[in-house]
Amino acid sequence: MQWVKVLGGVVGAAALLGLGIILGHFAIPKGANVPAPSVSQDLDLEILETVMQQLEASRIRENLRELSREPHLASSPRDEALVQLLLQRWQDPESGLDAAEAPAYEVLLSFPSQEQPNHVAVVSPTGSVVFSCRQSEQNLTGEQVGPDVVPPYAAYAPPGTPQGLLVYANRGTEEDFMNLQTQGIKLEGTIALTRYGGAGRGAKAVNAAKYGVAGVLVYTDPADINDGQSSANETFPNSWCLPPSGVERGSYYEYFGDPLTPYLPANPSSFRLDPDAAPGFPPIPAQPIGFDDAKSLLWDLWPQLPGREHWVVTTGWGPASGLMATSQQTEHLPVLSWGKPGKQLCGPQGPVEFHAHFTSDLHTSATPSLELPSSFPNQDFRTRCSLCLEHPSPYSCHSWPTLTFPPATSQVNVSVHNRRELRNSSNVLGIIRGAVEPDRYVLYGNHRDSWVHGAVDPSSGTAVLLELSRVLGTLLKKGTWRPRRSIVFASWGAEEFGLIGSTEFTEEFFSKLQERTVAYINVDISVFANATLRAQGTPPVQSVIFAAAKQIPAPSPVGLSIYDNWIRYSNRSSPAYGVVPSLGSLGAGSDYAPFIHFLGISSMDIAYTYDRSKTSARIYPTYHTAFDTFGYVDKFVDPGFSSHQAVARTAGSVLLRLSDSLFLPLNVSDYGETLRSFLQAAQQHLGGLLEQHSISLGRLVTAVEKFEAAAKALEQHRSALQKGSPDPLQVRMLNDQLMLLERTFLNPRAFPEERYYSHVLWAPRTSSVATFPGLANACSRAMNTSLGSEAWAEVRRQLSILVVALEGAAATLRPVADL
Amino acid sequence: MQWVKVLGGVVGAAALLGLGIILGHFAIPKGANVPAPSVSQDLDLEILETVMQQLEASRIRENLRELSREPHLASSPRDEALVQLLLQRWQDPESGLDAAEAPAYEVLLSFPSQEQPNHVAVVSPTGSVVFSCRQSEQNLTGEQVGPDVVPPYAAYAPPGTPQGLLVYANRGTEEDFMNLQTQGIKLEGTIALTRYGGAGRGAKAVNAAKYGVAGVLVYTDPADINDGQSSANETFPNSWCLPPSGVERGSYYEYFGDPLTPYLPANPSSFRLDPDAAPGFPPIPAQPIGFDDAKSLLWDLWPQLPGREHWVVTTGWGPASGLMATSQQTEHLPVLSWGKPGKQLCGPQGPVEFHAHFTSDLHTSATPSLELPSSFPNQDFRTRCSLCLEHPSPYSCHSWPTLTFPPATSQVNVSVHNRRELRNSSNVLGIIRGAVEPDRYVLYGNHRDSWVHGAVDPSSGTAVLLELSRVLGTLLKKGTWRPRRSIVFASWGAEEFGLIGSTEFTEEFFSKLQERTVAYINVDISVFANATLRAQGTPPVQSVIFAAAKQIPAPSPVGLSIYDNWIRYSNRSSPAYGVVPSLGSLGAGSDYAPFIHFLGISSMDIAYTYDRSKTSARIYPTYHTAFDTFGYVDKFVDPGFSSHQAVARTAGSVLLRLSDSLFLPLNVSDYGETLRSFLQAAQQHLGGLLEQHSISLGRLVTAVEKFEAAAKALEQHRSALQKGSPDPLQVRMLNDQLMLLERTFLNPRAFPEERYYSHVLWAPRTSSVATFPGLANACSRAMNTSLGSEAWAEVRRQLSILVVALEGAAATLRPVADL
Repeated sequence: MQWVKVLGGVVGAAALLGLGIILGHFAIPKGANVPAPSVSQDLDLEILETVMQQLEASRIRENLRELSREPHLASSPRDEALVQLLLQRWQDPESGLDAAEAPAYEVLLSFPSQEQPNHVAVVSPTGSVVFSCRQSEQNLTGEQVGPDVVPPYAAYAPPGTPQGLLVYANRGTEEDFMNLQTQGIKLEGTIALTRYGGAGRGAKAVNAAKYGVAGVLVYTDPADINDGQSSANETFPNSWCLPPSGVERGSYYEYFGDPLTPYLPANPSSFRLDPDAAPGFPPIPAQPIGFDDAKSLLWDLWPQLPGREHWVVTTGWGPASGLMATSQQTEHLPVLSWGKPGKQLCGPQGPVEFHAHFTSDLHTSATPSLELPSSFPNQDFRTRCSLCLEHPSPYSCHSWPTLTFPPATSQVNVSVHNRRELRNSSNVLGIIRGAVEPDRYVLYGNHRDSWVHGAVDPSSGTAVLLELSRVLGTLLKKGTWRPRRSIVFASWGAEEFGLIGSTEFTEEFFSKLQERTVAYINVDISVFANATLRAQGTPPVQSVIFAAAKQIPAPSPVGLSIYDNWIRYSNRSSPAYGVVPSLGSLGAGSDYAPFIHFLGISSMDIAYTYDRSKTSARIYPTYHTAFDTFGYVDKFVDPGFSSHQAVARTAGSVLLRLSDSLFLPLNVSDYGETLRSFLQAAQQHLGGLLEQHSISLGRLVTAVEKFEAAAKALEQHRSALQKGSPDPLQVRMLNDQLMLLERTFLNPRAFPEERYYSHVLWAPRTSSVATFPGLANACSRAMNTSLGSEAWAEVRRQLSILVVALEGAAATLRPVADL
Repeated sequence: MQWVKVLGGVVGAAALLGLGIILGHFAIPKGANVPAPSVSQDLDLEILETVMQQLEASRIRENLRELSREPHLASSPRDEALVQLLLQRWQDPESGLDAAEAPAYEVLLSFPSQEQPNHVAVVSPTGSVVFSCRQSEQNLTGEQVGPDVVPPYAAYAPPGTPQGLLVYANRGTEEDFMNLQTQGIKLEGTIALTRYGGAGRGAKAVNAAKYGVAGVLVYTDPADINDGQSSANETFPNSWCLPPSGVERGSYYEYFGDPLTPYLPANPSSFRLDPDAAPGFPPIPAQPIGFDDAKSLLWDLWPQLPGREHWVVTTGWGPASGLMATSQQTEHLPVLSWGKPGKQLCGPQGPVEFHAHFTSDLHTSATPSLELPSSFPNQDFRTRCSLCLEHPSPYSCHSWPTLTFPPATSQVNVSVHNRRELRNSSNVLGIIRGAVEPDRYVLYGNHRDSWVHGAVDPSSGTAVLLELSRVLGTLLKKGTWRPRRSIVFASWGAEEFGLIGSTEFTEEFFSKLQERTVAYINVDISVFANATLRAQGTPPVQSVIFAAAKQIPAPSPVGLSIYDNWIRYSNRSSPAYGVVPSLGSLGAGSDYAPFIHFLGISSMDIAYTYDRSKTSARIYPTYHTAFDTFGYVDKFVDPGFSSHQAVARTAGSVLLRLSDSLFLPLNVSDYGETLRSFLQAAQQHLGGLLEQHSISLGRLVTAVEKFEAAAKALEQHRSALQKGSPDPLQVRMLNDQLMLLERTFLNPRAFPEERYYSHVLWAPRTSSVATFPGLANACSRAMNTSLGSEAWAEVRRQLSILVVALEGAAATLRPVADL
């Protein structure tokens, strides 16, 4: 019957509909309608272009405004608020990631006392304070005051109140102190005034303490940071320069990672070293000051302090010093430099009025003569000069006037009341799960904590991170895209205290990370200045950075790619490629350090930076001061944020290429160039010395050749596979070789005295020869020892370690079923 | 036209034929017609059965006959001849592997001087030799003489000719020497006679030297090796027992690997330690002797040497001693053991005629009384006894007669003339390349070098290795089979000197091996005895050994599988499976040591062994002697070679399962059982002590729970994948988790004083508690130190290292895209 048929039809349709609903509900995964993964999923150039287009400068600017609105010192309430902000963004249903969490570690930080502020003063013999340094920076923009602005301090410097005569100790290197001692300057019990640069922060205190110095002051010299500019109207907020009251804060801890839990994650119940016995802390109190105060100590105080004996300048003092660069005589400061550059010393320095100058050029004239300005307070300083000269010579002192210094009567007091505290510090981690190879991770990270507002450092990087994760998250949530491999975003905690959050993370997950991580991308300060891209990394990442940089327009000049602009500022001649931009090598300046040095993961750091023809600033001028604010960035560093956008695009493109390419874009043959150049430097600079000790570099040469051959063959294999239709396991096997190459350079037993450093190519190098660090360092130590010394045995050991590592690397690159 | 058509047809046919020839020549690979690999290639049970069937006992027997035909000490001409034999077999066109090679290392070995044989003699006060020990074993089968039979010696013992009074020092443990000292025995300058067992060979000399002992003799006690049998007619060639002249050779080096190149492969140009400063060598001359000579020194010499003072027995002396077991009084030897087992001491021992015996049972009677046999030479030894008793008590000495010992007049001279030499020692490596995952290696190895003929050790293993490689090679060359993963066969050199060949191999290729090795299978001595299978390994290999053993018939009794037979001899109760055979744990007794301890590769050792109800022999009796010959094996160890065949089948099945299964047959959840039992032991035996020091095991408990949960979830994931149709990368990712789990337990910084040992679960354990070694050892050291000692800090550090390792292991097992 018809109605039966109709009913049947309706029932059938309903059943089908119901089945459809059930299937739709249960059989098709909720959420993103990502295309079903294919084992051959490869980089999609349209998606890449979409991402490039969607990265907005204005959003980066807004991110930065929010991130740098308040100071966010590690573990502070605002730092924790930013943890929540990051979590919120990464858990956003429209633009978030697959998952995000914020695990905390309990780490040892160091803070100045609020009750007893640190204090530097000049004290007269009667005990009265005749001069006090500022305890905070000048409030120039309304942002330099408030309870969250941490006063300048040297983190981890021990508390103490040393008092003594002031000694000017240049950069506080070991050589600086040695030179002072050589001059007969009594260092025991003094306060050393040093300037930033040349030696690490903590190293200045370590070096000083070796010579009995009781306390260390550190200032930022305008010559080093401001290209000499030092007056208020020449500096921020009138320019990007550091104002006279600006003080660089920083960690004075010598290692990285949580100081109490080396090699272990700083979980609450982890084993901790005794804080009073743990190594790496500065041994004596230290305090940073602004250059205005430094100048006062050096200069304005002179009339009040006629008895000061120790106004002595050592190596490197000269026309470069901004503090001294206020007279016409700067080129003629009495740096006696004939014949032995870097070894010259001279007499009393300080107030510019005291400057003697030479009427002939010391560098060319064999018999310089000396004139003193009329303002010179005392014409008789022959006695001191003869003390000062390292190598008295016929024309050194006899024609000089003698200046007699009365004994010192006033002293400098340094009161430090820092406290070390266990604090919770969080990392924020967010993941986009890989569609095809979720067990391969591309890591992208930056720290979150700042010293004050930290607009440049680190928020310029975090602003980029958030914009990149927004764009990728949006594509993900829309179902347009899911990467081949997993992407892990990280916002590290407590980097400023010593890369702590990232290091603890690598300690906690070292096996998993070593097994699975393709590469680590670090974007800390994303824009130092807006001239050019600057990238540091290990050789395998060079090609992917170049590939990205070639396809992105530079903010300026119009028409150039980032790559083309970059090559104008910084380049080198590559045997394989001709002139290419210079990829810098990785030290330990940011969170990439534990990834490359401890885990052997190919790493990179990407930023925009200076035109070095326009500034010789050691770093951007407001670094680690209360003047590193949103307004500073917006007005002086990157108006319009186009450099931020350029970095976001470059790092984003690198990230996508690493996460999405079927074949990992890591070029292992580029390591061959580094090895070859290290080898040539070793042959050139160490070969003769080694030969004298019957040590041949022959096996090293062979090892480098083996590496080159294996890398070349592997690249050919890659090309062949790319042309064919490889099965997914063939690609995976090749990618594993590429990924794991960097790991083969690790040897945890190579440098037993270096914490975390186990990469035999990138461990710290004390020698100036750009070669294999273990070999170079061992040679430096052995150089002046006898033939059969332990130091020479160590040279041989280091050479063997290196050869084994290179041969092991070559073995990893060779066909996988070769014996 | 017809002829045109014909011609056309002919030309066409010729062209087709030509094309066919060309295609056949160029387009089809030469050699084995292996089926094209499929990414889902899985274990083929038919192939497995074929392999099982084709492993022939008679061929193993012939292999053994050839391998043990001549002595083949490491680096000897015959050892090198066997290298060629292996190469020839593995390069055979009909039954060889894909490739084979024999790389050599230059390693430090130690040999006795041919010109100045080592010599042990008793010398009278006048300097005349009153007794000489044998310099070689008795020629019982015609195989114990000849230039290639190396005389008994202690490899690496330094040359020297110490002479002094003889002291019997039991097993030469630290406690043995301490006890002697406690008894007032002067050890300085003496010669200590010790027996094998209880302490490592080298340890006996190290312990002795700490007490000023000048030389060490070591003999094999019939009680330890022959179940007490000691006469010529009770021993080989009349039984499997050790003849009176048999001497165990061995390495007295304390570590493993080439002594001069720790952590570096011993290539000719590698850095080498100064041989005179390298650690681990015995500090004083040592020489092994037979029990016949030991008996002479202890016993027969008495009448000639009435003045000997040092006939003192220390711990563990008792009815077990075969030398002493010739009297009816053996159960009543004066071991004063009430209350404190293992801590007893007693008086003068030596000639059985001297034995006092107790008329009441010391273990049950509170007041034992003592009788001396009428032959006892002196009734007065009360004085000495009071010295001997560690814990004098009311019933200890007062009823004892006193024996006065005249002063010693004769001494023992030990002349050792060993020389250390750099020698070339080869490994032989052969590979069958994997069809699908050639970058995954299953390693199968045994050493090749022996002390003399080495029929059991190691040729019984090499005979099996050659038969297995023949069967697999034949299938390979026929084109019937190619494994999914690569199989690497290895014949290691210089194992007897300290696992040298295998260790150097792991040092040379550590990165590649760590990245790619699925498991290492060791079959050294394949048949100790013919009662039952014995397997040692880490937990993940248990399941694959069980699976293999269940499907192979035991040689006897008929009808039982190897598994069913095994469980009768050695079993334990598993929480997960009920009663199962006991899988032993891996020490450092063979070449698996560097693989498990240094590289963290899941390893196993497989053999057939004793019925422990029938023998308590420390090891098979002719171990390391000139009596370990083909005839010995053929007649006494495994007549018919069915146990050899059983081992070949078991190891072969394990090898095929590991190389061919789509899903790796490593059961990671079985590690949970070990961790749980270690945890329970720690809680039970260390928990109280730790609690007293406020150390909680809570985080360790949590870590074990996390591991168990992650392992369980992974097994479920594996099951789900196995039921579905996973893509090849999903399988690979899971397999990587399984393969790399063992690596997560490595921490190269965990035990800085232990060379190579970095596996936190299997490092050497000094404590008797079967738990985590780092924790147990640290607790032992800390136990008697004060609260804040460094030893207690080390306990906390070890606990943290352990927790991090277990949590890292759990992280590796969790879903790969979990944060």
